[in-house]
Amino acid sequence: MKSFRKELWFNVPSRRAFINITPQVEECLRESGVKEGIILVNAMHITASVFINDNERGLFHDFEVWLEKLAPHEPVTQYRHNSGEENADAHLKRSIMGREVVVAVTSGRLDFGPWEQVFYGEFDGGRKKRVLVKIIGE
Amino acid sequence: MKSFRKELWFNVPSRRAFINITPQVEECLRESGVKEGIILVNAMHITASVFINDNERGLFHDFEVWLEKLAPHEPVTQYRHNSGEENADAHLKRSIMGREVVVAVTSGRLDFGPWEQVFYGEFDGGRKKRVLVKIIGE
Amino acid sequence: MKSFRKELWFNVPSRRAFINITPQVEECLRESGVKEGIILVNAMHITASVFINDNERGLFHDFEVWLEKLAPHEPVTQYRHNSGEENADAHLKRSIMGREVVVAVTSGRLDFGPWEQVFYGEFDGGRKKRVLVKIIGE
Repeated sequence: MKSFRKELWFNVPSRRAFINITPQVEECLRESGVKEGIILVNAMHITASVFINDNERGLFHDFEVWLEKLAPHEPVTQYRHNSGEENADAHLKRSIMGREVVVAVTSGRLDFGPWEQVFYGEFDGGRKKRVLVKIIGE
Repeated sequence: MKSFRKELWFNVPSRRAFINITPQVEECLRESGVKEGIILVNAMHITASVFINDNERGLFHDFEVWLEKLAPHEPVTQYRHNSGEENADAHLKRSIMGREVVVAVTSGRLDFGPWEQVFYGEFDGGRKKRVLVKIIGE
Repeated sequence: MKSFRKELWFNVPSRRAFINITPQVEECLRESGVKEGIILVNAMHITASVFINDNERGLFHDFEVWLEKLAPHEPVTQYRHNSGEENADAHLKRSIMGREVVVAVTSGRLDFGPWEQVFYGEFDGGRKKRVLVKIIGE
């Protein structure tokens, strides 16, 4: 069994953003040399997310509005977590969007449907944060 | 390490539905011959879901009502994604229910608790869509 | 390929609770002897969750309030699933928080970011329930 590990680093200037990381994940897969197996891509921080969806600008606006409705940032005093920091909403938003994805690797490629792309979801930016890519297989 | 791959195809006539795919997933596992490992089952489309829950009719009614409350289909004009299509809500609903499940394989069986069953969740039907089953192990 | 399997048992007296199970998961990893691979930790019951977040008391209060707002327990008659039982909300809450986590194993350790911890989320306590830990690798 082969295994491969790499960290992807981000420093998002805004509080929230969605970034398409499919090219970086594909590059990791090429580096790994794994042809058959699985790839795990996860946020290493608990106020960020890795998820798979459509690469469409309008949709990301919709996600932003929707997440802010389900788990609003303001008023920050509504959350007990917000003593010293004010990112409780980011923990909740990340719970909806998910921490990780597991993707099949087949014939050396991400075994994706026609529109699947991997995204990093930042919900508490303004600092350096990481995504872990782990690949196991042969 | 063995690996196995199969696609399950669906063509749901209604916009939304929940389909128990446990028998098909078990059949894949038998075909694979894998006794110890893991099985990944994921929607290959970004408006559909694979998830594990209880096989109970009343519960699926509750899921339908609840998802429609959290991410309503109408009015379709509330979403920027809906230019040319009208499935933005399906992308949001799928985000709540999840893209994929990873299940342990032990002694050649899905290592499930007493009520766990695997479901395909369709949120934008009326066309052919796929689920990927990938198994790795020995 | 090595594989390892263990069940963790819980009997939460209250209806809902969050329990940090990171030490038990780390103990499983030590027992397994796996140095490189992945670890799957999943609830074996469909009214419970395994998820990764921050080990902070205020945040767990916020999760409790937030989940109860998104998927309220009362009135129990609002859910069709509640004929004979009254745990429909637990199925919904678990859908938001997730059934499982997959964590990379690197050099014999959980490959975690600085604040990541694994939690068992109980949404319908008062009885014995299980979490499955499955590890594959070398």
